[in-house]
Amino acid sequence: MTPMRGVLSPVLTPFRSDLSVDVPALAAQCRWLLAADVGLAIFGTNSEGNSISTSERSDVIAQLVADGIDATRMMPGTGACALDDAVRLTRVAVQAGVGGVLVLPPFYYKGVSDDGLFAFFSELIERVGEAALRLYLYHIPPVAQVPLSLPLIERLLDRYGAVVAGIKDSGGQWANTAALIERFAPRGFAVFAGSETFLLPTLRAGGVGCISATANVNPAAIAALARHFDAPDVELRQARLDTVRQVFASLPMIAAMKQAMADATGLPDWRRLRPPLVELDAVQRETLSQAMALADFRIAIGPGAAPASPD
Amino acid sequence: MTPMRGVLSPVLTPFRSDLSVDVPALAAQCRWLLAADVGLAIFGTNSEGNSISTSERSDVIAQLVADGIDATRMMPGTGACALDDAVRLTRVAVQAGVGGVLVLPPFYYKGVSDDGLFAFFSELIERVGEAALRLYLYHIPPVAQVPLSLPLIERLLDRYGAVVAGIKDSGGQWANTAALIERFAPRGFAVFAGSETFLLPTLRAGGVGCISATANVNPAAIAALARHFDAPDVELRQARLDTVRQVFASLPMIAAMKQAMADATGLPDWRRLRPPLVELDAVQRETLSQAMALADFRIAIGPGAAPASPD
Repeated sequence: MTPMRGVLSPVLTPFRSDLSVDVPALAAQCRWLLAADVGLAIFGTNSEGNSISTSERSDVIAQLVADGIDATRMMPGTGACALDDAVRLTRVAVQAGVGGVLVLPPFYYKGVSDDGLFAFFSELIERVGEAALRLYLYHIPPVAQVPLSLPLIERLLDRYGAVVAGIKDSGGQWANTAALIERFAPRGFAVFAGSETFLLPTLRAGGVGCISATANVNPAAIAALARHFDAPDVELRQARLDTVRQVFASLPMIAAMKQAMADATGLPDWRRLRPPLVELDAVQRETLSQAMALADFRIAIGPGAAPASPD
Repeated sequence: MTPMRGVLSPVLTPFRSDLSVDVPALAAQCRWLLAADVGLAIFGTNSEGNSISTSERSDVIAQLVADGIDATRMMPGTGACALDDAVRLTRVAVQAGVGGVLVLPPFYYKGVSDDGLFAFFSELIERVGEAALRLYLYHIPPVAQVPLSLPLIERLLDRYGAVVAGIKDSGGQWANTAALIERFAPRGFAVFAGSETFLLPTLRAGGVGCISATANVNPAAIAALARHFDAPDVELRQARLDTVRQVFASLPMIAAMKQAMADATGLPDWRRLRPPLVELDAVQRETLSQAMALADFRIAIGPGAAPASPD
């Protein structure tokens, strides 16, 4: 099993007018990302993953694989509040041959104990019962509001070894990412920054890359930095990535990226989100357009490159 | 369709050693609550509802109805982060003849707009497509972290009328409950307090009752107050209810109630929770026992009254 590393993206999920997942359009986006050397963290936060039921997510994985998308490059989000949902979806993903799964803690109850979280991940791993399982923990307290502590991770590593393969740290606190790398990277634990903002320090400290939303719209430049993080111009490259990220981070990010994809491909269906998220309004669209122009940023994809299938 | 009112309880969910729902034991708990005039808000927060997948919840509803539990007294929690999960489960519940459904907002994304929440509830109502649907909104910002605003509720009422039947206000802010009653009760909108703490002021202001976790362990006294809220001794009764609630609220509440049920019935299986929640530890058990003794409180249920079925 090749460990996952480098840059992955929580692939934006295109929806049809009935809000079903447009799998051919998603597959096209996956191909575009893979061509830029970006792996596929489908069903992440920026994929609206939790707005897609676990049974839908299972179906989409099967359809992407049937469509020829390389499963070993996929790290689908398979977390759920209900253990049995997480178990079923994780098993489907592993049996489809994915390189790993990215698993949120159960996120309804807040202030839960490490004992309770250990029990959840432990039951998940044992019930899935697949030696090929490579579980990446998803630490995103600003959204999930349920953090994953270092002692919890240590307990999981002590018990399950290489099955607990790594983490995406979307906490936004460099000190936590640094501590994760220092304590667990020597054990082969793969630490991904939660965005390209901390890509350079992560790689320099011994982390393996980043899983970043904006890799959906700026994949090649982010992946290039990860491959050449010891090049002489890396600081400039990092600054350029930060500028582009800020264009999207200053707006509701998922809606802004979908709008930009719609504009770049000429496919207005790309704008659609599932509730409770909504499209950009007219003022936000204008803000996005101006910010992209100011940053001199264009999405490097041609019109119709990610064709929506007929409704 | 008789509107739901009075006292309901988010029925505690008994689990077998494999963590499956022990439906016969749940049915016994439902019968005990109904005998005390307490309605059945199964799959609420204190039922660990979000730890039970929507497909499991669908099965349990069917089994309870097949077991003879009165569906019209049920208000199952049918919310989910993914619209299609919420639609499927809500439709199952309505077709089973439930008196209402209690629906959380999608709770993964935080800081979402009223437009997005309106779209979610609107799609839910229209996709379920059942005239018999009576949807009760579930406002519980301390846990879900996604509040339901008065303008949102007004938009839903304006669009869907009696289908948007009421709300459970678990925000803990009396001013919000009072505003809900003042603005919407004249339109037939049923406002339930989130616990018995605000039962008297809710009923006096024109609300219809409460949906309270501690009605699992103290059902008869809470239901009696709701029926006789104009009796001369109501303040004393309310104070007594508050004392008992505090016994459980001072500990992890779900675990404490399950422990108390295990002790009262002599059925240790009652102690079990699904991860990420955990049983009381030894110190907490002792605290519970002392607090119950100090409050002179006992659960009015006999040994074996809610028999667990064989594992």
